[in-house]
Amino acid sequence: MKTIDLNCDLGENFGHYQLYDDEQILPYISSANIACAYHAGDALTMRQSVLLAKKYNVAIGAHPALPDLIGFGRRAMAITADEAYAYCLHQIGAIYAFCWAQNVRLHHVKPHGALYNMASVDKVLAKAIAKAVYDFDKSLLLVGASGGELISAGAELGLNTASEVFADRAYTDEGLLVSRTVKGAVLQGEAVLKQALALAVDGIVTTISGKKLKLKADTICLHGDNAEALENAKRIVAMLKENNIKIVSC
Amino acid sequence: MKTIDLNCDLGENFGHYQLYDDEQILPYISSANIACAYHAGDALTMRQSVLLAKKYNVAIGAHPALPDLIGFGRRAMAITADEAYAYCLHQIGAIYAFCWAQNVRLHHVKPHGALYNMASVDKVLAKAIAKAVYDFDKSLLLVGASGGELISAGAELGLNTASEVFADRAYTDEGLLVSRTVKGAVLQGEAVLKQALALAVDGIVTTISGKKLKLKADTICLHGDNAEALENAKRIVAMLKENNIKIVSC
Amino acid sequence: MKTIDLNCDLGENFGHYQLYDDEQILPYISSANIACAYHAGDALTMRQSVLLAKKYNVAIGAHPALPDLIGFGRRAMAITADEAYAYCLHQIGAIYAFCWAQNVRLHHVKPHGALYNMASVDKVLAKAIAKAVYDFDKSLLLVGASGGELISAGAELGLNTASEVFADRAYTDEGLLVSRTVKGAVLQGEAVLKQALALAVDGIVTTISGKKLKLKADTICLHGDNAEALENAKRIVAMLKENNIKIVSC
Amino acid sequence: MKTIDLNCDLGENFGHYQLYDDEQILPYISSANIACAYHAGDALTMRQSVLLAKKYNVAIGAHPALPDLIGFGRRAMAITADEAYAYCLHQIGAIYAFCWAQNVRLHHVKPHGALYNMASVDKVLAKAIAKAVYDFDKSLLLVGASGGELISAGAELGLNTASEVFADRAYTDEGLLVSRTVKGAVLQGEAVLKQALALAVDGIVTTISGKKLKLKADTICLHGDNAEALENAKRIVAMLKENNIKIVSC
Repeated sequence: MKTIDLNCDLGENFGHYQLYDDEQILPYISSANIACAYHAGDALTMRQSVLLAKKYNVAIGAHPALPDLIGFGRRAMAITADEAYAYCLHQIGAIYAFCWAQNVRLHHVKPHGALYNMASVDKVLAKAIAKAVYDFDKSLLLVGASGGELISAGAELGLNTASEVFADRAYTDEGLLVSRTVKGAVLQGEAVLKQALALAVDGIVTTISGKKLKLKADTICLHGDNAEALENAKRIVAMLKENNIKIVSC
Repeated sequence: MKTIDLNCDLGENFGHYQLYDDEQILPYISSANIACAYHAGDALTMRQSVLLAKKYNVAIGAHPALPDLIGFGRRAMAITADEAYAYCLHQIGAIYAFCWAQNVRLHHVKPHGALYNMASVDKVLAKAIAKAVYDFDKSLLLVGASGGELISAGAELGLNTASEVFADRAYTDEGLLVSRTVKGAVLQGEAVLKQALALAVDGIVTTISGKKLKLKADTICLHGDNAEALENAKRIVAMLKENNIKIVSC
Repeated sequence: MKTIDLNCDLGENFGHYQLYDDEQILPYISSANIACAYHAGDALTMRQSVLLAKKYNVAIGAHPALPDLIGFGRRAMAITADEAYAYCLHQIGAIYAFCWAQNVRLHHVKPHGALYNMASVDKVLAKAIAKAVYDFDKSLLLVGASGGELISAGAELGLNTASEVFADRAYTDEGLLVSRTVKGAVLQGEAVLKQALALAVDGIVTTISGKKLKLKADTICLHGDNAEALENAKRIVAMLKENNIKIVSC
Repeated sequence: MKTIDLNCDLGENFGHYQLYDDEQILPYISSANIACAYHAGDALTMRQSVLLAKKYNVAIGAHPALPDLIGFGRRAMAITADEAYAYCLHQIGAIYAFCWAQNVRLHHVKPHGALYNMASVDKVLAKAIAKAVYDFDKSLLLVGASGGELISAGAELGLNTASEVFADRAYTDEGLLVSRTVKGAVLQGEAVLKQALALAVDGIVTTISGKKLKLKADTICLHGDNAEALENAKRIVAMLKENNIKIVSC
């Protein structure tokens, strides 16, 4: 039986600010990436998010980001490899503490936003991030963009890796995400379901130019931050089950 | 042979800002409380401080504080018990990650500044902090003001505790620190050495009114943040050795 | 014709975080207190909030707070008078810049949350805050709790002041707000309308013990942060208009 | 009589952290760029720095930066033009408040660190920054790298501009600063004095390849953050005076 992981970002509230209700997406995913107070989240939120993920038996990951709360970690910053290493270790330790206190395992690490994008194309940053994961716990799973530098860096260190793909984003012939500024970059409706299925079953994506491309797909990124995203998630889950694909963390 | 621990705050630089050279005090202490990025410190500084403490074979502690970088964690804040719990867990996890990555043990937890003071007199906060330590690792040593609520809260949970005393601060008849605003609150010169010795040998302090008071003294707090403090530390160490008191972490 | 000011906090979004839609309350108020990036708000939000307030011809005020983003400025902090002075000046200047750039006047200053509460009872803090307002612009209106120390401090400096009252909060016989932890502290339904009218028309409030108390009422604080609050605001406005009370900034 | 401005960054302390003694450089400069709490500085520091600059009769400028306290504003960040505009306005207003409260004029604006560098080469950012200055006060002087985009953007809006040059940095044939990673990028000893004089007298610099290049030089950037920098500043001042060049703000 085929399996696939469905992951979603979680714990992105901050202080008085509530982005959305984390609990709604939890029944539909197998792993959650929890914000660690750099781009979002605070100590109380981290605690609460770990409790919620545990309640739904969802695998918990650290979601380390750039130190940019105002920009939600979405703005590229010229950080050094040493900074990337230390920032990741800091954030992994933070979420680990809340896991450990609740007797639940920390399962994976997936960088957030701009750090994720930078780690996909920058070998030096990718190595530093993978090394932080390795130094903390060799058994942690490293999640990164399918075909990107982070996956390579993790593999080189002997880490288990999970190649992430997107059901709702168009890909270039090179296997990269089409920039959101390009028309057709974001898929909608049936196209999302179709891409999710092709990726989950065959590890194949039809690029924006119409080519068929092999793309390793261990985990699909879902969104739970609005009603439409939630609806999409439910439909993907239903479709995968209909096709006898088991949703399970890597 | 009598023993005593000498502890000092460490890792209080931040980004571009260097407070003082951490390395100078390290030869004279047996345990270090490392800032965890709430009142001071950042990821790179935490990493560096753990490396330094390891180099000098000094026991490493988390030094959790209130989230007040501008005020260096020295201003009381009306936080809830839940916040105290989560803030401590967050900071313990952060420094733990840097210890673990360097294969060195996290040994103790000592709250910083206003949080330390609040935990000495507020039962509810003290319990929350002790619970965070307990939930993370029951074998961690909890350090607090001798005779204060944090020590009681730790003991109640079955944690090992270390009662901290100050060589350079006058005590009231009730065993509390005399407020810095009172004349004679800060001891100098020979008085510091004398108080250190009496505490280390007999666990006795002469209060500001002249009474002799029993005061449990597992660890003495030293300062390394200026030339005079460093000189004082050296003299205390020399005097303790002359008196056959071994300096060793609890 | 009687007049009263209706004020509301505004601009409390932060970065990616949207608390509520500021625009909905604007048609119902005569003055807005805009967050200045200490407890909430950031540069983009400040700009947008000033634009919105200008669009609705609502008087703009600075809403200075304690430097506590995680706690939304609601936790008391032991700051000095010098810090209170400098924090207020900083925040007044920040919002002033966005006003000035849009050719709209900065009209008043009302402290936020814990700073507001502290300034109501602490003479020294109250003086420091009033002095910051005075030093920046003697023509600014200072808004504080009716009967509190901030109003006195402002008056002593010769500042125009506006005494603020709450329509939805019970008062003690001493003219203080009944703590939210006490049953009956928060009024609902018709009681809110009744208290608003009595305050606006006669400057009289019926205390929680049933006494009638004189209470200077220049401005009533409204809330716009949820559907119910908004509904309440609309009803108060309608009721005041029916009673020939003009809603206008002080 | 020829004139030149000598400027220096000021007010870069933060909270408990003291970088250096601001007062030492003040006798040698004609204008100071004061940090505005984004990359350094806090409300108390801003207040103190304005007082000091006033005491030495030095022209005061805002020194707006990227929101990156950990990185001291030295790391490039992918901010939008809207963000650059709002960040600058925020910071200009902040320092303006402290000037206004002390009855001293805000004289100029010079971006800091990475924002300075980005504004030198990025037309869109440069325009946004110049517009923020223009919208706040058309009479403010805009300071930027000689020959860079910020100077052009300011001139286009009709702002007075000051072209900044460096006495201690080598220039390329294109009039850009040689990267610090290149050997010979940082000048020392007599070379600094020689370059300062050639720039001040003739607006000419000898590039790293040996060419003579015209370079508009309204203001020379000095440093006061260590003993050597201070010594250098004194020697430049002495030399300029010997050559009958008057040191005065633009």
